Amino acid sequence: MSVDPRLRTRATELFGVDYPIVQTGMGWVAGPSLVTGTAEAGGLGILASATMTIDEMDAAIGEVRSRTDQPFGVNLRPDAADLDDRADRLVEAGVRVASFAGPPPGPVVQRLRDGGVLVMPTVGARRHAEKMAELGADVILCQGGEGGGHTGSIPTSLLLPQVLDAVDVPVIAAGGFHDGRGLAAALAWGADGVAMGTRFLLTAESKVPDTVKAVYLGTPVTGTVVSSSIDGKPQRVIRTRLVESLESARLTRMVRAAANAWRFRGITGMSMAAMLREGLAMRRSQDLTWSQMAMAANAPMLTRATMVDGDIDAGVLPTGQCVGVVEDLPTCAELIDRIVAEAVEALDRLAP
Amino acid sequence: MSVDPRLRTRATELFGVDYPIVQTGMGWVAGPSLVTGTAEAGGLGILASATMTIDEMDAAIGEVRSRTDQPFGVNLRPDAADLDDRADRLVEAGVRVASFAGPPPGPVVQRLRDGGVLVMPTVGARRHAEKMAELGADVILCQGGEGGGHTGSIPTSLLLPQVLDAVDVPVIAAGGFHDGRGLAAALAWGADGVAMGTRFLLTAESKVPDTVKAVYLGTPVTGTVVSSSIDGKPQRVIRTRLVESLESARLTRMVRAAANAWRFRGITGMSMAAMLREGLAMRRSQDLTWSQMAMAANAPMLTRATMVDGDIDAGVLPTGQCVGVVEDLPTCAELIDRIVAEAVEALDRLAP
Repeated sequence: MSVDPRLRTRATELFGVDYPIVQTGMGWVAGPSLVTGTAEAGGLGILASATMTIDEMDAAIGEVRSRTDQPFGVNLRPDAADLDDRADRLVEAGVRVASFAGPPPGPVVQRLRDGGVLVMPTVGARRHAEKMAELGADVILCQGGEGGGHTGSIPTSLLLPQVLDAVDVPVIAAGGFHDGRGLAAALAWGADGVAMGTRFLLTAESKVPDTVKAVYLGTPVTGTVVSSSIDGKPQRVIRTRLVESLESARLTRMVRAAANAWRFRGITGMSMAAMLREGLAMRRSQDLTWSQMAMAANAPMLTRATMVDGDIDAGVLPTGQCVGVVEDLPTCAELIDRIVAEAVEALDRLAP
Repeated sequence: MSVDPRLRTRATELFGVDYPIVQTGMGWVAGPSLVTGTAEAGGLGILASATMTIDEMDAAIGEVRSRTDQPFGVNLRPDAADLDDRADRLVEAGVRVASFAGPPPGPVVQRLRDGGVLVMPTVGARRHAEKMAELGADVILCQGGEGGGHTGSIPTSLLLPQVLDAVDVPVIAAGGFHDGRGLAAALAWGADGVAMGTRFLLTAESKVPDTVKAVYLGTPVTGTVVSSSIDGKPQRVIRTRLVESLESARLTRMVRAAANAWRFRGITGMSMAAMLREGLAMRRSQDLTWSQMAMAANAPMLTRATMVDGDIDAGVLPTGQCVGVVEDLPTCAELIDRIVAEAVEALDRLAP
C-alpha cells in the first residue's frame, strides 16, 4: 500500500520511515522487541539505552539489527559518563537517530552529526528549542506538559505553536497524542509528526509485565500526578500510594528523605556504594540538595521495580496523561495502521 | 468574500455566523462593544450577563441589537436566583445562544430551547459532556485545563477527543486556542469550532483598562496559576502577589480567611449585607466551607477591581495560559480575519 502523501513530512524523509509516528525511548520499556515492532510497522522506534550499560546497548542494537532492516533510533542520557563512547558506537552501528531527554553537550551533537546520526533532543520550553536548534539539532521533539516521565508545565496546545515559531528544523509533537485524529491535529498546527510513549508502552510488543499494563489501563485521565520528589525534577507518574507518600515526605526534612532512601535501598537492592556513586554523578550534573540526591540515586531502580519486576507497590509508573484514554493492547502494526487510517479519515474531512 | 467551505461546520450553521470562532462571555469584560465587534467580524460574540443585574442585561442586549443585525449569545449563571426570568428575556429578545459556565437546570434548558434559543454549556470532563447532551444541550463547549477562569485539570489534547467520542452534538473546543493554526488543529480533531476568551480580552474593542491589558501582554506562558482560594473552585488567573498571598492563606485557618475577606470588603467596597447575601446563595448552591464562602462572596468584586476599575493590586486577573503567546491588541475584525487566513493556510498545506 502506498503512503498517503499528506503523511509524508520532512521528518519521514529524514528518518527514512513510512509514517510520521515516533515511539519514544522509555527506560526499561523500549527494548528490542518494541523497537522492532514499531520499525517493521513503519514508525520510528527508539531504543532506551539510558538504563543499559554500554555493552547492553550494543547488544540491544545488534538484536534490533538482526530483526529488521528498517531505520531506528537510540535514546541517550545527556549526562552519561561514557557519552562520547556511546556516540561513537551509534555512529559505527549506523543508527539513524540519537534522541535525548535533556540537552546534549555541543561536542557530542557534532560527533553524532559528523557520523551521520540525526540528533533529536526533547524540549519542554520555547527557549530550549531555540538553544538546541542553534547547537545543530536536526529535529526537535516538543513535549507538552501532559506528556509522560520528565515533563514541563506548558501544555501541547501552547508549546507546539511556540516551538514551531521558534525553529526552522522539523518538529515532532508529543504530549497527549495517542490516535490518528491527534496526528492530523499536529500536522494542522504545522508539526512534522507525533511521538508517543504511553501508547506504545501499552502494546503487545512492550515487555512490561501484564499486571503493570493492567494498572495503566485502569488509570483515569485524572489519575496521574507531576511529582518532583522522585529524582528532583518534575515527572508525570501514576498517582500510587508510594508516590503520595513521597510527595508528603518532600515537605519534611532531610532526615525523613534519608530514611526513605534507605528504605528504598532495601526494596530495590541497590548497594550503598552504587547509590552513592549514582548520587554523586547526579549532584554534579544537576542542582540537587543532598536529600533530593539520596532519593534520586534510587530513581531508576524505582522504575525498574515496576517495569521489569512487576512490583507495583515498590516502584513508580511513569506515564502520560493520555493513559486515561488508552484502553487496549494492540500490536505495533495494528496500532500504527489504525492511527494512519484515522489520520487519513480526519484529513479527508478537511479536504476542499 | 465568500467563506472557505472547510470553515463551515454544524456550529456555524446553528449559530448563523460566518466563522467557527466564539468569543466567550467573560464577566465584566464581554460587554456590548466586544460582542458587537465580534459579531460584525463574523464570529459569535457572547455577552457576559453573570455580572449584570437583569435590567443591565436587558439594556446590554438592546445595545448590541442597535449596533448589529448579526446573531450573538448571552452567558448566564446557572445558579442565578432570577434564572427563569433571564431565560424568558433571552427568548423575547430572540437571542441566538445561551451559554453557561456550569450545568444549567433541566427546566431552564427546556424553556430556552422551546423559545428557540440554543443552549451551550461549558464542560471540563467527559461525563459532564454526556450529562449535558442528555439534558438537551445543542452545542457543547469543551474547555481544556489550559483555559481561563474556572477550569479543569484535563488538557485540551485529551479532553477534546474524549468529548468528541462521548456526544453527537457539535463541539466547540476551548483552552489554548488563540490563532488559525489552532483552529485548523481543532477541526482536524473533529471539533466544530473554537472558543477564545483571553485572545478577545486583548482586542481593541475590549473595554478592559489599558494598564490591565499591559499586564496581560507582559505575562509569560508560565505566569499563570490555578487557584481554588478565590471562590472555592479552581480558577486560572495571572500569578500576582495578591493571588500568592491568597494561596498561602488557604493553608491557614478560618481566622485568616475571615480577616482576608474583611480586608477585601474594604478594598472592594462591598457592603456586609451584600456580602452575606452573596455568600449564603453560594453556600446553598455549592459545597463551600464558611471560610471559603467568606472569600467567594467577594470574588466577583475582585475581578471587577481589575477589569473595570483597573486596580491591579486589589483584584484578580482571570486568564487562559495562552496569555503567554498573545502579543498584540488587534481589532476584532483584524483578529478574526487573521485567524481565518491562518486556518485556510494550514488547511491548504494538508490538502491532497
